[in-house]
Parts: sequence; C-alpha cells; structure tokens
Amino acid sequence: MADYRKMWEDLGMDVDQHDVLCEVLPQAFGDVYLSQENRPEKMDYFNMVVAEIHGIRPAELIEFQKNGGKVVGTFCIHVPDEVVFGCGAINTGLCSGSQFWVPGGEKYLPTATCPLIKASLGARFEKTCPFFRLADLFVGETTCDGKKKAWEIMSKDAPMYIFDLPQMKRDKDVEFFKDEVYRYIARIEELTGNKLTPESLHDAIVLINKKRRAMQRLWEFRKLDNVPISGKDCLLISQIAFYDDPTRFAQKVNELCDELDKRKEQNVSVYKKGATRLMLTGTPLSIPNWKLHHIIESSGAAVVCEEMCTGSRYFELTVDESGKTMDEMVDHLTDRYMKGINCACYTPNTERVDDIIRLAKEYNVDGVIDVNLKFCNIYDTEGHIVEKELKDHNIPVLGIETDYTDEDSEQLKTRIEAFVEMIENGR
Amino acid sequence: MADYRKMWEDLGMDVDQHDVLCEVLPQAFGDVYLSQENRPEKMDYFNMVVAEIHGIRPAELIEFQKNGGKVVGTFCIHVPDEVVFGCGAINTGLCSGSQFWVPGGEKYLPTATCPLIKASLGARFEKTCPFFRLADLFVGETTCDGKKKAWEIMSKDAPMYIFDLPQMKRDKDVEFFKDEVYRYIARIEELTGNKLTPESLHDAIVLINKKRRAMQRLWEFRKLDNVPISGKDCLLISQIAFYDDPTRFAQKVNELCDELDKRKEQNVSVYKKGATRLMLTGTPLSIPNWKLHHIIESSGAAVVCEEMCTGSRYFELTVDESGKTMDEMVDHLTDRYMKGINCACYTPNTERVDDIIRLAKEYNVDGVIDVNLKFCNIYDTEGHIVEKELKDHNIPVLGIETDYTDEDSEQLKTRIEAFVEMIENGR
Repeated sequence: MADYRKMWEDLGMDVDQHDVLCEVLPQAFGDVYLSQENRPEKMDYFNMVVAEIHGIRPAELIEFQKNGGKVVGTFCIHVPDEVVFGCGAINTGLCSGSQFWVPGGEKYLPTATCPLIKASLGARFEKTCPFFRLADLFVGETTCDGKKKAWEIMSKDAPMYIFDLPQMKRDKDVEFFKDEVYRYIARIEELTGNKLTPESLHDAIVLINKKRRAMQRLWEFRKLDNVPISGKDCLLISQIAFYDDPTRFAQKVNELCDELDKRKEQNVSVYKKGATRLMLTGTPLSIPNWKLHHIIESSGAAVVCEEMCTGSRYFELTVDESGKTMDEMVDHLTDRYMKGINCACYTPNTERVDDIIRLAKEYNVDGVIDVNLKFCNIYDTEGHIVEKELKDHNIPVLGIETDYTDEDSEQLKTRIEAFVEMIENGR
Repeated sequence: MADYRKMWEDLGMDVDQHDVLCEVLPQAFGDVYLSQENRPEKMDYFNMVVAEIHGIRPAELIEFQKNGGKVVGTFCIHVPDEVVFGCGAINTGLCSGSQFWVPGGEKYLPTATCPLIKASLGARFEKTCPFFRLADLFVGETTCDGKKKAWEIMSKDAPMYIFDLPQMKRDKDVEFFKDEVYRYIARIEELTGNKLTPESLHDAIVLINKKRRAMQRLWEFRKLDNVPISGKDCLLISQIAFYDDPTRFAQKVNELCDELDKRKEQNVSVYKKGATRLMLTGTPLSIPNWKLHHIIESSGAAVVCEEMCTGSRYFELTVDESGKTMDEMVDHLTDRYMKGINCACYTPNTERVDDIIRLAKEYNVDGVIDVNLKFCNIYDTEGHIVEKELKDHNIPVLGIETDYTDEDSEQLKTRIEAFVEMIENGR
C-alpha cells in the first residue's frame, strides 16, 4: 500500500487516530470478503479500491483540486450528481458506515440519533476521514429530522449548502423540488465558476446513466436461478458507486459483467443449490457496513436484492436523456430524483410497498428482511406498514433493528437463521 | 361529578379501561394542584374543567354536533384555529400528556418515538379518550418525522387531513405555507358545508386574539417580583386553552386576572421571597403532564415562563386584525402561524434562541431548564445549540430529558435541586 501519511497530514487529519481505523479495516475486509469462495476475478478492482479507500480516490480528488477543480460531498441520493459533474466538479458520497466514527458524533448529537448521522459528524469533527476534509462544499438535505438538525451543527465547522426536500409528492411539491434543483445549480455554478449549459448537463446525465446501466446489468445476474455473484459483492459495488470515478466505475462493472456472462452460460453459482433467496429493504448500508450480508450469506442464504439507497433506489431508474432545453432537463432530473425515489421521508409512501412486492417477484425472493438502522424513525414507523402489507401478500418478512456495532451479531444470527429455517420448512 | 358513562359508551369507548384513568386523575390533580397554598380563588373554574375533563367539554361538543356542527381535532399550534371557527366549526387540541395512553401507542409505533405521539395513537386506538372519538376530522401535520409517519397509521382508523409544513422560512416557504392555509380552508369548507368569508374569518381572528390577549395579560403577572400565581397554575391554564370554548376561556382568564390585579396591589406572592426564577424551554407539556412544574415548585423555585407550544409560542403573537380581503387575512395568518412560530422543525431556527434570551430578560429569570421529551430528535439536537448559546450569554442552563412516566422523578428532583442551589450560590 502506498504511503498516504503526508497527504492525510496536509488535509489536517488526526493521523494517529486515523491509524486505528486503518489497522482494523483490512482485517474486517479480509474476514468478510476475501474469505468468500469462487469469487469473480474481476472483483479485484473493487478489492483494491477498498484496500486503499482513504488513499487512491482522495489522492485523485486532491490532484483535481490542484488543477482548480472543486469537489462536492453529498449525503443523500435525492441530490442530483449531474449538476455537480455538469459544472465540471466531482461529486462524492459521504455517508459513513463505521462504528469508528459514532462516538465522535455523539459528542454533538443525541445518542438517540441514527448511527449514519452520528458517524458523519464524527468523521468531520474528529478529522479522521480524508473525504470529510477535502470536500469544498458539503451538501446536506432535509430528508429526516436527524439530518436536518445535524447540518446546523456541522455548518459551524464546514462549508455547507442545504438542499430542501418536500415531504409529499403532490404537483406543488414537484414544483418545489424543481425549484430546489435550480437553486442547487446556482450554488454549484457559484462554487465552480462554471455555467451549467444544456450541453454540459446533457453530458452529465449521459455519464451518470452509464453508471446506472452498468449496475442494472450487474443486478440482472441476481435474478438468475444460479446467481454468479454474492450479495456481499454486489453491496460492495453499490457502496463504491457513491465515490468512485463514474466512467471508470461503469467500465469496471461492465468488465465484471462480461465475466458473469460466461458464468451464466456455465450455470455457475456462488451459492449452494436451493439456497434461500432474500431481499433486504430499509435504511442504507454505507461502507464498510457489511454486517447483515455477512451474517446472512455465512448462514447459507443468498441476498439477491436490496431495496435501499445502497441498492435499487440508486440506479433502477435512469434520467430521461431526450431533454433539449435546460427546463426540460431539470424536469427530467425532478422526475428521476424526486418522483422516482420512494423514500420513507415522504408521506404517504405507498409506492415503496409496490416496489418491494414487484422486486420480490422479479428477483424471485423467498423472504424479505426489513432492516432499520437504530433510531431512524421514518423507516422504523413505515416498517409497521411495510411488514403488514408483505404479510398480506404472503411474503415472509423479518423486521430487524441494528446499528454499527457488532454487539448484536449473535442475536441477529440466531434470528436470521430461524427465519431462513422457517422459510425452508414452509416450502 | 355527573355520570358520563352513557355518553362514553355511545362514543364507542372502552369504558372499563377508561375507568382506570378516571380513578387516578383526581388523585394526581389533588396532589399536584389542590395542595398548593394561597391559590387565587378564580382557579376554581379551571379546577372544575380538569375535574370533569372527559365530561363537560365532550358533552358540549356532542351537543354542538347534534345541531349539525362539526368538531376538528388538531395536534400542533401551526394549524390555524381561525379557519375552523370561521367555518362555524369548533377546534379542539388533541395532544396527549398521560403515560396511560403510551403502551397503546407502542403497539403501532417504535418505542423510540416521543411519548406525545405514542399517547395520541394510543388514545385513538384504545378508545379511551372521548375527544379522540368525537372529532369529525383529525388534522395532522408534518412537523416532525414521528408525527408525519404516525398519521399514516392513524389514518387507517380515523378521518385525517394532513397540513404540510415547510422546513425552512425563505420566501418560497412562506408562499408554500400560505397555499397550505388555502387548501386547509377548502377542506374545512367541505367538511362543514360552510363558506369561509372575509367577515367570518375576521370574526374568528378577533375571537382567537381575545384568548391570546387574556393569556398575555395573565403572563404579565409572572414578570412581577412578587408573582401572584404559580407556574403550575399558568401551565394548567395554557393546557386548557387548547380545548375549552375560546370565549368562555378568555372571560375566565380575565376574571382571574382581575383577582391578580388586587394581589399585585397588595404585593402578594405565591412564592417565598427571593425564590429562584426559572424558565422552561423545549417540547410541549400536554395535559396532564405537570411533573416538572411540580418538582420545581415543590423545591421552592418558581417557574415564571415557558418558551414552549404550551406557553409563549401559543399566544405571544396575535394575528393582525386589519386585513380586509381574504388574501390579506391569509397573509396575516401565515405571518402569525408560520413566521411567528420558532419551532425546531425549521432549519435553521436561530430566532428561537433570540426568543429565549429576550424572555429571560423580560421575566427576569435566574436560569433556564431545557426540557426534552424523550426521542424528540429535533428539540434534542437543537438543545445542543440552545444550551451553548445560553452559556455564552451567561445564563445558567440545565438540559433534561424526560417522558410521561414517574420513574425519573427522584433523579430529576436531585438534578433540579442541584441546579437551583448552584444558581443561589452564584448570586
């Protein structure tokens, strides 16, 4: 591994504290990922990206900044990447999935806040993540109470912009969102000094759609009877999608898919025949949160779909590329980024249940695990509705609540194994 | 006490279960309220209202309904009462302050939801509150995640309308709110069959302002060196304001104020000379949640101000009565109900800190207690900012988190007494 110590010091990071994280991550990744049998060879690229997660990409971004480029960090899939890339800047996801950052966040936030938000503030305030040091602008949003109020605290330390989301999906809310897109464009133009043009926005839409299509192609393999790639690996790719270079990422995913095409021809599966097929739905699983997939797949079941922000919500829909004028394109962004995302932040959000039921059929799942990050009130409350609807549709469902610690691993293992057994007995 | 059993049965209530509540409430009220020394005589009316809280007012509302009137129940001070009264209907507050209803709500909602919301759903689903049975329409809002998602569950059982709130206070958000007022008018016109006219809306504005002015008059007495009425009694009056008949309520408050005028002349105080003067800020204290005031005032300190929904936010500002056209009046409602309410649901909400600092001066307070109902994320997170600002202004502040149980009473007592002692030693 290259030595990035100097780079981290230059970013003003607490390098000694950061070393603690650097020491545990390779071990965790080895245990969860490298222990898998019969992995596709083309996962090598993604292994390498994770191995140097705080090195390679930050170094690229810093190089970009040295040449006058700007880097924008975002926390939610409602905020359109295309605006940033269209203005010649680079967008990077900032959602944090490690317990390492949680105690730092708890110095500023109530304990009863979801670990994702606490980890994000912890990563910033404790100076232990290069992405949280190098971003030129941090874009928060008003998805949930926890985030909305956390940004007020983070904004005392970091340059922030708030993308305001409506809470319903009526026509007036669509107009509201569209106006927010225009405001966001103005802010990113101001940051970069570049004007967003119909041409540059169109190119950015095509760029990000390529990434989405690569992921769509990958996910098609998960619908097969013989699934040639693990759920764990697909999760990793979803997580990396948020911060890798989009062109390179799409290319690497497509190379992987070429390999999987061959596996498909040969009916190769990474799972035992008849493995129970599970879908996960709920709150996002940010990198390096691999706990659930590891527990599920270690028990012999297969994760074949995630109805999550780190999953189908991120790439299932592309942005319409037919827009000619700025206004048409902003309409298309609004269609995709607001109407197309069925997040529990909306009331009502019945379309999400429709999505889950549709995906359950498409991926031929035997059961659904409704995952809630502890203290995420919107998904937790909506889970009451989701789980009832799934039961009414005779789809087995298990509701679980978890956080970033490993304290509940044994309990989750027991519950998930019992759930899988129940499904197998019910066949 | 009159026998309301038949009425409760006719409302479809679980009368046996409701009896459990009826048995404990008089004892609690006696312990907290009737034990006070030197109370104003005119508190008798309010004592009577509480003594028959599930009898007198529900009976009046049912009588009103028999004559074709409609009753609208609301949960938030952002929803304008004037619209309801202007359409010839009656508005009643529905926020629930008793632990009695919490376990019923927990059958439908995550445990990590604030007790106010859990109690509201419990009161509805368990059929143990007449107000929650008789309302013709329940008006929820999108103040916080907990409420926004809870209404989806309650709407499966009750006729609901959702008043959508913006999350910021920019011009576009003001327009958004104004449009919500118009939508609300249309919904209430549909419910009542009555058209809201400039005349009827003007009358309703004047009606509710009279209630606000009566409360403003009452609160002036709390600014005196010799405070002639307890914080406990003022809290009770604030709580009753939400559901009593506004004309009668204003009259009774004014009669009480006439009595307090005499006390003022005679320098009568309900507190010992030099009692520590405290302000409470934070989440609402719904009836019958008197725990904190009881602990504070039993320890010899005085509560002289509540910067809360059950406090200054409810009545400090009146609605401008000069509007002639419908649009002018809706603008004035928007000014009062949106711009005028500094709730933690907005981001940012710096005006609330300004309010607290201003009120601390006006009421000459020695210290502030920042109260958070457990699992209210927005006030809990904002508390971080509020407490820091107060410390920067050299105003002693104590942050506490509590719920509707009595389990933490001893701990709260210890902490509050230590806080008061610290203030006294610092003088």
